[in-house]
This record gives sequence, structure tokens and C-alpha cells, in this order.
Amino acid sequence: MSIVDRLAAARADAPADLILRNGRLVNVISGEIYRTDIVVHDRHIVALGEGYQGEREVDLAGKYVAPGLIDAHVHIESSLVTPPEFARAVLPHGVTTVVTDPHEIANVLGLEGMRYMLESAKHGLLNMFVMASSCVPATTMETSGARLEAEDLAPLLDHPWVLGLAELMNYPGVALADEGMLDKIALFENKVLDGHAPDMSGAMLNAYVAAGVESEHECTTVPEALEKLRLGLTIFIREGTTTRNLEPLLPLITAENHSAICFCTDDRIPADLIDHGSIDYMIRVAIAGGIDPVMAIRMGSYNSARHFRLKKYGALAPGKYADILVLPDLEDFRPEQVYRGGQLVARDGAMVAARPESRRFDLRSTVNIAADELDFSIAAKSGSIRVIGTIKDQVVTEHLVEPAKIVAGLAVSNIERDILKFAMVERHRASGHIGLGFVKGFGLRRGAIAGTVAHDHHNLAVIGVDDESMKTAVAAISAMGGGLAIADGEVVLARLPLPVAGLMSELPIEAARGQYDDMIAAARELGSPMSDPYMVMSFMGLEVIPKLKLTDLGLVDVEQFQLVDLFL
Amino acid sequence: MSIVDRLAAARADAPADLILRNGRLVNVISGEIYRTDIVVHDRHIVALGEGYQGEREVDLAGKYVAPGLIDAHVHIESSLVTPPEFARAVLPHGVTTVVTDPHEIANVLGLEGMRYMLESAKHGLLNMFVMASSCVPATTMETSGARLEAEDLAPLLDHPWVLGLAELMNYPGVALADEGMLDKIALFENKVLDGHAPDMSGAMLNAYVAAGVESEHECTTVPEALEKLRLGLTIFIREGTTTRNLEPLLPLITAENHSAICFCTDDRIPADLIDHGSIDYMIRVAIAGGIDPVMAIRMGSYNSARHFRLKKYGALAPGKYADILVLPDLEDFRPEQVYRGGQLVARDGAMVAARPESRRFDLRSTVNIAADELDFSIAAKSGSIRVIGTIKDQVVTEHLVEPAKIVAGLAVSNIERDILKFAMVERHRASGHIGLGFVKGFGLRRGAIAGTVAHDHHNLAVIGVDDESMKTAVAAISAMGGGLAIADGEVVLARLPLPVAGLMSELPIEAARGQYDDMIAAARELGSPMSDPYMVMSFMGLEVIPKLKLTDLGLVDVEQFQLVDLFL
Repeated sequence: MSIVDRLAAARADAPADLILRNGRLVNVISGEIYRTDIVVHDRHIVALGEGYQGEREVDLAGKYVAPGLIDAHVHIESSLVTPPEFARAVLPHGVTTVVTDPHEIANVLGLEGMRYMLESAKHGLLNMFVMASSCVPATTMETSGARLEAEDLAPLLDHPWVLGLAELMNYPGVALADEGMLDKIALFENKVLDGHAPDMSGAMLNAYVAAGVESEHECTTVPEALEKLRLGLTIFIREGTTTRNLEPLLPLITAENHSAICFCTDDRIPADLIDHGSIDYMIRVAIAGGIDPVMAIRMGSYNSARHFRLKKYGALAPGKYADILVLPDLEDFRPEQVYRGGQLVARDGAMVAARPESRRFDLRSTVNIAADELDFSIAAKSGSIRVIGTIKDQVVTEHLVEPAKIVAGLAVSNIERDILKFAMVERHRASGHIGLGFVKGFGLRRGAIAGTVAHDHHNLAVIGVDDESMKTAVAAISAMGGGLAIADGEVVLARLPLPVAGLMSELPIEAARGQYDDMIAAARELGSPMSDPYMVMSFMGLEVIPKLKLTDLGLVDVEQFQLVDLFL
Repeated sequence: MSIVDRLAAARADAPADLILRNGRLVNVISGEIYRTDIVVHDRHIVALGEGYQGEREVDLAGKYVAPGLIDAHVHIESSLVTPPEFARAVLPHGVTTVVTDPHEIANVLGLEGMRYMLESAKHGLLNMFVMASSCVPATTMETSGARLEAEDLAPLLDHPWVLGLAELMNYPGVALADEGMLDKIALFENKVLDGHAPDMSGAMLNAYVAAGVESEHECTTVPEALEKLRLGLTIFIREGTTTRNLEPLLPLITAENHSAICFCTDDRIPADLIDHGSIDYMIRVAIAGGIDPVMAIRMGSYNSARHFRLKKYGALAPGKYADILVLPDLEDFRPEQVYRGGQLVARDGAMVAARPESRRFDLRSTVNIAADELDFSIAAKSGSIRVIGTIKDQVVTEHLVEPAKIVAGLAVSNIERDILKFAMVERHRASGHIGLGFVKGFGLRRGAIAGTVAHDHHNLAVIGVDDESMKTAVAAISAMGGGLAIADGEVVLARLPLPVAGLMSELPIEAARGQYDDMIAAARELGSPMSDPYMVMSFMGLEVIPKLKLTDLGLVDVEQFQLVDLFL
């Protein structure tokens, strides 16, 4: 079929594939809700109005009809599953399009990782667009699996599914006119440039925006968001698993400014996606918080389509793709039917379309360490150590100074004070680099937890009470080519294989979620009070977020932006 | 200077070129008005906020500051002057950017004509973007100077100043899947596709929109505009010299839908531009009609920038071009200062910047007729003739049947009944084609008027009481290589040379306006009661607008869409 067939159906000169009759259309373009039929042919909406005949007709009996939702910024890797499984999780929630930054896999596998995500996108049920990762690696104080300069990103420029340059996290670099950052911005100047500038304000923020950045998803307060919106940044309000900004930012939203606001999830774990949803969840929260439903739906669909210049998405009108939600109720925004390209893919919160056959894309192994040569011992140089202090529900940390527990000349974990040994093992290049330090707050009384999910370099992080448990966990991960593990002495208690770049499982998301629940239960058995110690651990190596972090090259004082010694 | 310098100024690490202090910013992004300083460096706005130092500083003392205006759809040729002179007319009114369809010159000179407009744009003070003309010629019932198929337009696709495909006037062709139209749409599918579909509705309109069309500027009533807006067309409300749609469409505009509405002028003659203005006039009328000023300004700036994906235009924020208006009053929207790229170009309604040197672009002569072989005699075939009946202030006509006045076997003008001879002389290819007919309403008691402005083919139109006067006027136009002329017997009473494609004068717009006023005065002397008989004549050959029109191939019954005989 072609445009010629679609126009014939639009003219009512030929029957259409499908007619959704008697729905109440949420028209995000005109800002109205009214009754009309929706005429679908050859994957597209071809007409709105009465007097059409269809091969199939569905009577919606006054139910609401809204456009498929768009997640403006999401790292699919955080779902711990591959894109086709991520699609199975979000489609029943009405998310039909995502704009993803394949930043995690790009840090591990570079362009090959981005190509994997693009290939996965091409054959899936979810409309997946990619932003080219802009900060690989994040800094020079780590060893990542790849390094991408402007010239490396150039081949992506004209890729039909690449919309622009992903979050420019090196925000001081951008504002200070770092040559490499400006090269990337110049390359993508006619595409979309996404931002990431937590707490930036004033003159430095002006410079960041003046460089061409167009969006920001790191706002946590209304004054911060308003300053950024006024400067022209589209505000992506984010509601991730850990970073929950929606309720604090609801007072930002007005009828006058909401066209400059979109919704995104950034990072959501499997249980969160399955149990609570995605953009649909945000729309429910927004409406419950007093936002007009049409405005809330716009922020979850149309506004993102406009921001990313996706002209066939985000609204229900002739010529757009037939990505359609049917909803019994608008306040409690839960899609009863989800159509993608005119095909019913989910109903009553469950997939009804089979997962399409994916093209097999064999990635190389990404865990490259010598597990039997690991040495986690720390020779004591003084009685006083820097300790990374975790803070509940935050990814920032405290920079603590604590007395060292010294045994036989070695600094060791101190379970009485909940100060545990923390190692970051370089896993991409077998360099032998191991960053060593201590961390407070994980609460393990025995054993060790480890994982190859460690933003953004994704080296192998391990936290433990004793070196033997740590080595056991690391060896288990090495043996399975990446993933999460928990060990006690020589015994591996649980494991979650993440064979795709050490970041993603190949299992269905429900199975991955079950394994993840088991991992958390095992950590609780060993004494950790955290609701999710693996996710907390995964941010303890991210040296672009304050205050004290650990990479494979050592402890980073983020405020000084330099490596510092463990001992004072 | 470069981005590096701009970022230094944005960070306040170096003084900026210019600071506009103490203005009240109309922030079209956030929908607010508040006090702030505006920091300009190297043609761009680099910062909003306090604490900056400038090489030059201007104290605005609380005056309003708004973005430079954007005309979403204008045929510059209708101003009868070249783009640099058009720029001189609109810049003092605050219009800093126009999106133009060089449709008139393209019908005369094809790609060469479009290149002329693009070249003119490149070196001017006005930001001029071009839409590639989509309907050259309009139909096969005329002889135009050029024919442009999709393959001819392909070289324009990646031109940095070409934004998309201009008004798709062959709207039945688009809806009926005409292959040539679909080829052009497919070529420009990732660019912007402008529409033109007067009175289209229902299934045919759905098909037109489903083809990918994105805008419409032909709406005259609220129900028509609302139907089109709901289907996803951006509504360009038009206020031309003859087509005045703004006041009738003001009730369309709501806070909920105004993001899908832009302002445009389409066609304005010199006197209108000079005396009344352009988009600024529309903003004044809208505000006087009760529209919120920020919404009105958005429709005249930001909304058009978003529609055309012009991300550095239409708003005042870091990274945008410094196209800035200073206004003492918001209700009576009259720019006191107009900055384009940070340069003060107009003040108090007059240009202060000199017209830049234009690149000389020699177009070939476009009037190619044998003036001494013209024969306007009409052998009478019956006593009853079809007559084109003009209607005041409209471009549609009546299809009249009148008794013929016959002298010596020839049908001639009948001044008692105000039925005058009308000839359309093919002027592009010396084909010898002359369409002959009669027209009612011009009121000449003596002489003839003639001109090479005759939409859209722009052949040479001439209306007269006697053949000698008609030949004198045609010969005068031929001698000056295109333009308007008025003659009485052997005497040329007035002339307005339009050497650029027979459409545009090379004089300053004030001089062209003076000549045009003289032309109208001369027509009044000869008895015409019309306020502008030349403009009315220019639409009497446009065979895509009902009901009866005359091309060089003969009379066209537009409702039947076919050529018809003069005699019944």
C-alpha cells in the first residue's frame, strides 16, 4: 500500500482498514475534546469525521481517544532488558514512541553499541528514536569502553532514526567553550541538542544555552526550572525510579508555558515500569495534581513531537501515524486499547501483539578482567580515610572523613560503623586498574554485592565485608560476561546475567524483574536495609555528580573535579 | 568572532557588544512579561539577566522588548519592488524575517527566478527564507514562462534558505493523488509543506491533509478555519491588501489553540506596506480586537518560527539571533527601535541602516512579443457573448452573458454598458497566442490599461475601449521590458517600468509607490471608478479562482475547469 491508497481511503473512495467510531477525541492540536470517528488506513490516520466505511470497525461508545505517548528522554538500558522487552513493558502503558540516549551502551561499546540499539529499534513495535551520545566518556578520570569524538558521531548525522545530540552532560565544558564539545554541537546544529545541567544558573547557564542547547531534564525545583524555561530550554519534567521531580515541579506548569514542557522518565527499573508505568503514570499524577487533562496529555505526547520535529507523531490527525490510545476515563489515565501504526498491540494493560522476530546482533564480550589476579587489599597509610556517604533517595553523596579500621597493616571494612570496602574494577581493557575506597550506608553484615552497571563508564563495582566475598562476586560476573551478583565467602547467593554489554538481560522483562527481586532479597538477607543497593551502588562511580565518587582510577572529589587520596 | 567569543560574553568573562538595559521582556516562550537586561554579542542574544557590561549600553527605561516579527507567507513580488526594497518597507514595521514563495517570478523565469530571490536574500538586511514554488504553471490552460516538476525542484532541497515546498495550490490534484504533485511532496517530506485550499472541507480536505500538507492561509470564516485547525493544519491568518481575513477570524483564536496559528500578509502593495505596515498591523488589530498581547505577538513571531523549524528566530533567548523590537507601548504595537542581528536598522518608523550593496544579478528580458503584429479584432460569431463580471473587493468573478456590440462584423467595446475588450497576450515565448474576451466593471470611457502582472502566468493583460489605445499600451510595456502602462489613442499617459521579470521595479519603494499612484490617477482621468484597476486586472487571468477568467489560450470556465468559447 502507498500514499495513493491512503488518499483514496481519506476521500472515502475506498473502504479504510479500520474505523474507530464514536470516540471522544482528545485533540492536542486544537486543545478540545469532541466526538468524531477516526479513520485508519495503511498504518496512518487518514481522516477524522463521519461518513466513512471500514473493513473493520470498532465502536468506542464514547470512550476517550488520545495520541500514543512519547517519552522525551529515556535510557533504555536502565530497564535492564533489551529494547524489544522494554517495548513490551511500556506499550501496554500507552507509550508508543521513545527518544533514547544509548549512553550506557555507548560507554561500553561505542558506535557498535549505538548500532545495536538502532538495529533493535528498526524491527520493533515501539517507535524508537536515538540521540547520539555526546559525552563518552564523561571525564578523563575514568576508563570507559569507548571514546567518541565529533568525527566518530558524524556517520550518525543523517541516520533517519537519529534526531540529534544527546544530553550534553559536560555542562561546564560547553559553557567554557571546550573545543571537543563545540565540535559536536556544530556537527548537530541543525538537529536537536539535548541538555543536562543540574543546578546550573546565572551567567554559566546563559552560556550553556547560548551554545545551542535546547532542553533540560535535571530540574528539581520550580525556581530552577523557571529560570531555564525563560532562557528558552524546553523543560523535560522527569519522573524516574530514583529521581522523582514531577510533584515538586507541578506548580511550574501554566496554560501559558506548558507548550515548552515535556514529560520523560530518564531511568526506570523493570518493577517500576511493570507496576507503575511510564509517561502514563506521569499524566495520572499531573491530573491528580490539578493539571488540565488536555495539557497533561500534550506534555506527554504532542509537545515532545514538536520539540523533536517528529511531524508524524504525537497527535491524532490525517497524515500522522495511527498511534492511538483508547481510555475509558480521562482522569485515571489508563489505556484500555493501544494501537501502534493502526495495529492493536496491547489491551487492558497487557500485550496482545507478539514480539516480532529481532535481527540477531552478536555483540562482543565486554567483561575483560583477570579475575584470579585481583587484589583488593589496602595498605594503611594513615589512620584517617575519606568515605563516600550515601544519602537516601539521592545520587549525590557526602564526602566523609572517618577513622580507618586497620588489621595487620591493612585498611578493612568496619561493619560496626557500616563502612565497607568498595572497589571499581576496570572491565573493558584488562588494564588492571582497580580503584579502592570505602562507602557508608549499604549495611551489609556479611558478603559482597557486585555489578557491571556503574554509571557512566560501567566498570565492575563491588562492595563487600571481606575480600573473599568480593572476589567470588567478581568472578561470578566475569564468568557470565557481565551482570549483577551477590556472594558470601566462596558461595554465590544469586546472580542476574546481563550479557548485552554487561547492562541488559536477554530474558523477558518479567523474568529479569524476578531475578532482580531475588538479588534484592539476598542483599537484605546479608543485612542491607536499602530498598535497592544495586542501583545505589551503580551511581557511586559517577564522577560528574557530587561529592565523592570512586572510578577505576581512584577517588574523585567532584567539587574539586580531581582525583584525591583515600588516606588523609 | 565566533561561538567562543559569544560564550565568553555570555559568561560575563568579556564585555558584550551591546546591552539593552531595563526593558520589559515579552517572553514568548514562557508567556510572561518581566524586567531584564538583554545581552547581545556577535549578532546573537547571548544572555538575559543582570550583571553584564557592554561596549554599548542602551537604557530602555521600562519600554517593552519583543522578538522581531515573522511573516509566515508573503509573495514579495506583490510589493512591486525587489527584495532589498521590500526589506526597507517592512523592517521599520518590525518585520525582521519573512518566509516567501517566489511563485510569481518562478512562473516567469523558473529556477532562475527563484535563484534571483535567494541571491537577493543572501546579502540583505531582512532574514528571507524561501519555499520552493510547487505549482508552476497553475494549470495547462495557460502558457507560463516556466514549468517546474519535482526533478527541477530537487536542487533546492538542501539549500540552506529553502525551508520546504510552497503553497500546494493544486489542491484537487493533491487530494486526488496526482502523480506530479505527490512526487513533489515526497521530495520535500522532511521539510515544511505549505497548503492553499480555499473552501476545501470534509473528505477531500482530509485527503489533502493526509498527503502531508502542514498549513493553510486561505481561511475566511471561523468554521472553515476550525475544521482545518482540528485536522492539524497550522492556520496562517492572512491580512493582505485585498484579502482581509484577520477581523473575521479573531474569534477563532483561543489560549488553547493559538500555538497552531500564525500571521501572514500574502500580498501587499507598496502603499499598504508603507502606510499601514505588515505583521505589526495585524498585531495591533488583534490586540484592539481583544486578543492578549503576548498571544498576538506569539502568532506574529514565535509560532511561525516553530512551524518552520527556525530555531534561532522568533524569540528572545540566548543563542537566538538578536532580532529585537523596542516598543513604548504594547497595545499600540509600533516599534520605536528595530534591531536585526544586533544592528539598529530602523527607528521611529524609518530606516537608519543603509541599504547594503546588492550583488548584481542580470535577469534575461521576459517580454517576448511582436508588438507590431498584434491583432485584437474579434469577428462576431453570434449576438451573445460571455463577459467576465468583476465584483468589488473580490478576486472571484461573475460569469455573465451579455449582448455583443457589433460594428462592421466585429465585436467591440461597449462603454454604455461598461463592457470593455480584454486581451491576454502571451509574453514569454512569442507564441502569438492572444486570448480575447470582454470584462465588465472597469469603467474606462477612453483609452486602455495594460500590465505584465497577471497571476499566475503573468502574461500581458490589456483592457481598453479601442484597439489603438490597447496597442499603444502594449507597445509601451514591450519597449520597457515589462511593467504597467496606460494609453489614450497613440499617447502613453503613464508608465511604471517593472524590468525585473515584468513584476518588480528597480526603484526605491517610495518612488515605485509614487509611479503607481500616478497610474491610478491616470485611470481615474479616463473614467475608471475602481480604487485600483491594475490589481483587479491582475486577477482576471487567474484560472484557478472562479468563475470566468481569461488566459492567453482563451476564456476559462473555472467551475467546469475548461476553455469555453466567447460567443454563445
